Amino acid sequence: MSFNSFGKAFRFTTWGESHGPALGVVIDGCPPGLLLRAEDIQEALDKRKPGTSKFVTQRKEPDAVKILSGVFEDDRTDGPRTTGTPISLMIENMDQRSKDYSEIRDKYRPGHADFTYDAKYGFRDYRGGGRSSARETAARVAAGVVAEKALAAVLDAPVNIRACMVQMGADKIDRNNFDWMEVDNNPFWCPDAKAATRWAEQLDAARKSGSSMGAVIEVVAAGVPAGLGAPVYSKLDADLASAMMSINAVKGVEIGAGFDAAALSGEENADEIRMRSGAPDFQSNKAGGILGGISSGQDIVVRFAVKPTSSILTPRDTITSQGEETTVQTKGRHDPCVGIRGVPVGAAMMALVLADHALLHRAQCGR
Amino acid sequence: MSFNSFGKAFRFTTWGESHGPALGVVIDGCPPGLLLRAEDIQEALDKRKPGTSKFVTQRKEPDAVKILSGVFEDDRTDGPRTTGTPISLMIENMDQRSKDYSEIRDKYRPGHADFTYDAKYGFRDYRGGGRSSARETAARVAAGVVAEKALAAVLDAPVNIRACMVQMGADKIDRNNFDWMEVDNNPFWCPDAKAATRWAEQLDAARKSGSSMGAVIEVVAAGVPAGLGAPVYSKLDADLASAMMSINAVKGVEIGAGFDAAALSGEENADEIRMRSGAPDFQSNKAGGILGGISSGQDIVVRFAVKPTSSILTPRDTITSQGEETTVQTKGRHDPCVGIRGVPVGAAMMALVLADHALLHRAQCGR
Amino acid sequence: MSFNSFGKAFRFTTWGESHGPALGVVIDGCPPGLLLRAEDIQEALDKRKPGTSKFVTQRKEPDAVKILSGVFEDDRTDGPRTTGTPISLMIENMDQRSKDYSEIRDKYRPGHADFTYDAKYGFRDYRGGGRSSARETAARVAAGVVAEKALAAVLDAPVNIRACMVQMGADKIDRNNFDWMEVDNNPFWCPDAKAATRWAEQLDAARKSGSSMGAVIEVVAAGVPAGLGAPVYSKLDADLASAMMSINAVKGVEIGAGFDAAALSGEENADEIRMRSGAPDFQSNKAGGILGGISSGQDIVVRFAVKPTSSILTPRDTITSQGEETTVQTKGRHDPCVGIRGVPVGAAMMALVLADHALLHRAQCGR
Amino acid sequence: MSFNSFGKAFRFTTWGESHGPALGVVIDGCPPGLLLRAEDIQEALDKRKPGTSKFVTQRKEPDAVKILSGVFEDDRTDGPRTTGTPISLMIENMDQRSKDYSEIRDKYRPGHADFTYDAKYGFRDYRGGGRSSARETAARVAAGVVAEKALAAVLDAPVNIRACMVQMGADKIDRNNFDWMEVDNNPFWCPDAKAATRWAEQLDAARKSGSSMGAVIEVVAAGVPAGLGAPVYSKLDADLASAMMSINAVKGVEIGAGFDAAALSGEENADEIRMRSGAPDFQSNKAGGILGGISSGQDIVVRFAVKPTSSILTPRDTITSQGEETTVQTKGRHDPCVGIRGVPVGAAMMALVLADHALLHRAQCGR
Repeated sequence: MSFNSFGKAFRFTTWGESHGPALGVVIDGCPPGLLLRAEDIQEALDKRKPGTSKFVTQRKEPDAVKILSGVFEDDRTDGPRTTGTPISLMIENMDQRSKDYSEIRDKYRPGHADFTYDAKYGFRDYRGGGRSSARETAARVAAGVVAEKALAAVLDAPVNIRACMVQMGADKIDRNNFDWMEVDNNPFWCPDAKAATRWAEQLDAARKSGSSMGAVIEVVAAGVPAGLGAPVYSKLDADLASAMMSINAVKGVEIGAGFDAAALSGEENADEIRMRSGAPDFQSNKAGGILGGISSGQDIVVRFAVKPTSSILTPRDTITSQGEETTVQTKGRHDPCVGIRGVPVGAAMMALVLADHALLHRAQCGR
Repeated sequence: MSFNSFGKAFRFTTWGESHGPALGVVIDGCPPGLLLRAEDIQEALDKRKPGTSKFVTQRKEPDAVKILSGVFEDDRTDGPRTTGTPISLMIENMDQRSKDYSEIRDKYRPGHADFTYDAKYGFRDYRGGGRSSARETAARVAAGVVAEKALAAVLDAPVNIRACMVQMGADKIDRNNFDWMEVDNNPFWCPDAKAATRWAEQLDAARKSGSSMGAVIEVVAAGVPAGLGAPVYSKLDADLASAMMSINAVKGVEIGAGFDAAALSGEENADEIRMRSGAPDFQSNKAGGILGGISSGQDIVVRFAVKPTSSILTPRDTITSQGEETTVQTKGRHDPCVGIRGVPVGAAMMALVLADHALLHRAQCGR
Repeated sequence: MSFNSFGKAFRFTTWGESHGPALGVVIDGCPPGLLLRAEDIQEALDKRKPGTSKFVTQRKEPDAVKILSGVFEDDRTDGPRTTGTPISLMIENMDQRSKDYSEIRDKYRPGHADFTYDAKYGFRDYRGGGRSSARETAARVAAGVVAEKALAAVLDAPVNIRACMVQMGADKIDRNNFDWMEVDNNPFWCPDAKAATRWAEQLDAARKSGSSMGAVIEVVAAGVPAGLGAPVYSKLDADLASAMMSINAVKGVEIGAGFDAAALSGEENADEIRMRSGAPDFQSNKAGGILGGISSGQDIVVRFAVKPTSSILTPRDTITSQGEETTVQTKGRHDPCVGIRGVPVGAAMMALVLADHALLHRAQCGR
Repeated sequence: MSFNSFGKAFRFTTWGESHGPALGVVIDGCPPGLLLRAEDIQEALDKRKPGTSKFVTQRKEPDAVKILSGVFEDDRTDGPRTTGTPISLMIENMDQRSKDYSEIRDKYRPGHADFTYDAKYGFRDYRGGGRSSARETAARVAAGVVAEKALAAVLDAPVNIRACMVQMGADKIDRNNFDWMEVDNNPFWCPDAKAATRWAEQLDAARKSGSSMGAVIEVVAAGVPAGLGAPVYSKLDADLASAMMSINAVKGVEIGAGFDAAALSGEENADEIRMRSGAPDFQSNKAGGILGGISSGQDIVVRFAVKPTSSILTPRDTITSQGEETTVQTKGRHDPCVGIRGVPVGAAMMALVLADHALLHRAQCGR
């Protein structure tokens, strides 16, 4: 019943509430000897840090990570290296403003976990959503950095994991404009410059009107060798589906052609294979790099849908914990499109799932 | 590294290959005292049994289940009752025709796991796909029957789990025609009689041309109380995503509004709440019955996309295990739309996930 | 809550009752490519098979094992080889004589699990102890054979696992007479020929008087490299303790000097180290080959105490399931010293724990 | 591969090294609504705190615990209550004196994990034993306090868990002098006042001569209802064996009569049952409160043997990490009898195992 752990071989456990003293993650099973500096993790955290643009919550959090265990450096090592024992990472909460939440202490915000947490546990830490807050994803991003290092070490080759937003609201990118270089040039991690411009206007309007928007994120892993994953309940795609669906506000996950595959004919869906310079060369990637739950060596392609942020200024009908009808309007600081911050989290979850399967594969098959 | 097990509290492990002597499942953690007869399981297996219509593989399998352990009946019990010890269920394979598969022994069928199994394990049982065959889902359906009984016993109330096909190829049902009563009246478990008629023609054409079609399945659980599920990595929707994605040929999973949620505004997506006869009454169900990973008491709605069967008669370019280019054409007996048989499997997985979470919730919260 | 599974990486699940149709085991995570014939397993099962001498139960069981999944042989393999998918092994129960047990249907046999099973589950399969019967250990011995093969393959070197009985009743062997060659020359797997002679008389007397005797078993694994095991809760000795204590009738487990270590001085307990032909050479083995939960490269030495068989002919005071005072006398066929059959089981558990840790070590440390 | 986690339903993960910035534990699966104050945990930690007598290490550690997550208090709760989300506890290391350890940086101390950690991980944090230090047990004691609260809440009745030292060196207590009231009157948690006096002299002599002594600890749980535990690999005694063997320096574990059971006749070993005031009344407790791996309602009695502290001033032969022969003499601050501090740790492990099984039993059997 490790409700807050993920992974079998590269296993991590996150803890912490939005307005508690801190949040963190403990990683167990990490290979020894990996160079791991707090700066490496900090760099990734800064990318997802709140307050970086008007399109994300204005909560000011340094998100400074501390490595509390699992690394050791002495004059014989060139830096702090993982020891093979649990790696404990902690991020202290600074800018909490609990007062912001007093109004919704007794009101169930539609689309939020307020109602279900009370139904399950009898009461809840209502400050900023407590455990259900997107703050928890900071711990995933931190763990993801360790996972990427472990993955590269185990495979003895780098895996290139990238993520981007391919749809905001109903507006999808134009695949002809797809350019990974564009991703860092706009606040949406959008690979289509034109779409990014449109989205800025749309989201600004939504933000000003106190509304919010949804999005679709795509995560691509290149350089994953064939053979990672396992039948039947540890399929690589099954674990990826679980990993992405566990991210706040995610309502759907698909691999490769995904839902569109339902409309393809058997002929269209078959990724034919030729040989090129002595290696199998797939002519298409409808499968998204996974066949029978095992990686094929092609790019692994996962997309997930993020619902619009549930915290909106428009008053909504709801009830109180005492069962009285009322309306609620969520003030406080919120992301008009929480999907934006889902981009680095999706990439981190991909790294964590792949590191886990790289270790599992090495255990069973020795490679 | 239990690759072939699923569930934390209600845990099952499946085993067996398509053309081995038998396949089966071992269920651990089932509550004691449940009435369990082989006939109850057989009834469910007969529903998914091959050979029942021209739209599913003509392989003739009685799929007769044997209960090998975990139940006991004597003159003080009114029938075989679960003892709380592992329930072992076995289904022997009868109609195997291994010769059918000799031709593809060395050829990798596009869209199949042939290539990836070889890449992972070094060799494979190529007969009928071995472990990657949809035969494995018979064990899930058998386990699902036990799960439904356990779920009703733990909740002390029946949960109504139903599944249907809502899209075949590109052709979706008309939601205005949705009628659960129709589901048993056609070979597609389609709730829209008109769509079923269209699909029959389309699939017959695909079948005759040696092609195949994909589909989208919807599974709905009614009567699930609020409170099942758990943050963060054991969210009910995360486990459902893993469960459905683990089914052969599934490429996408969504909850409630799913991918469409990305296009909704925050206002549209918020399921407002009123009171009705003393209980919370949600005005819509965009969330699909799950908030923050925990059930809200509304219907739990899951959809998954099934790709077209990869075994088709049309020759496709591929390579051999020796790396020579060739073409392959899959003869043998196959489902023109494997999604059809995914319907009872999806319902079984829903029962298994809910039974698991009902036990987990009782463990932690005592209800 | 996998109550009936053991192991993390090399994981097995046993099922079956003493008087059900069959019992078996499913092994998950086994490396692919291992040669595995039913005969290999049968040979080990025959060693522990009931009815082989007057000192073990006269129940006649062929204990014929069937491999139901997880192996594949074709003209390109030299025999059935493991495929990396679950290995399902089944042993059918033949000689059941349920009538023998009707008398104790309502009576709780002192020292047996009758009372506690009823207390936990509300009722029980009382035939031959149901799930609590030593019959379950047949599945462990079968799994142990696969574990030994996996262990040798992963370490790329054979590990020599041997077990023997070092004490029966209060009578211990003389360590000066210790000779592994003697173990197969007597029905007690006793390494001291003189002790074996004494034990034969003592046990015969106990058997004739309807009594029973306890024993101490020693299991030694030679050839285990340094580095297997892990802090803190997966220590090799912690897993061995759990493994041995899970065997029926075991009441104590110790490693190396074990309980005697409490009486040693720090100086006496320290296994000093010298170098011999370039390798560390320990001057003693008080540690039993494990330091800090990790193997040191020395012999791994485990001992466990088995209580006298609880099924005795002498009438004992007890109560019925209805709470009436009565006496019980266990007829039926029983081992006068169940410890005898614990010898191969202990060796099997050692193999299973070591195989598990060999895979875990390879996963994390790549060797 | 959660090497550093323990428990299935009440699951905790410890992290931290002896000389890192901090150590801690994350508890997952704890029931919600339990009153939990840092003071409650602090009280238990103070009991095992170093430096309390001349018989334990003089390292000065406040061992001040912080609750970082999993509890919430507002004006509607009477104090901080568990929320059902992960409880993160942290203890910062203060008095580290790393210089003390520089001398043994390259030398393997006999009886320590220095050699095996290097063999497994390639290098190690040698400061104070790093992860293998008894410092880790502080996290267990902290988690044990939460476990005791959870256990009482789940059983809706208090369980009285007590531990004491019953043997130091070769000197056992006299069972006729056994008095729980004496346990807090001496630095050994010894229930026999006379023995405590003898031990003080013996240990003082050992301490002055730079030697060390071993011990045997007994843990007794009273008030545990019948029914906790489960066949076959989650037997209550199997989990207790693993729990106790995972404690530093423990070399043996036994339940009830333990190793002495081997010398008993079947008649002597049978705990006969009578009725007393309508309840089963066992006439003896050779079983130590566990039959078939399930609690019988009697006192649960576990003993474990602790080897003498490996850190001694007497020079011992050993080798360096470069494979050169040398001698080592462990200065620094050490417990002359580490078993003393094993007493509260043993009690904590008993609470953790029982809480785990209480939740597991409630999950499966609803009580």
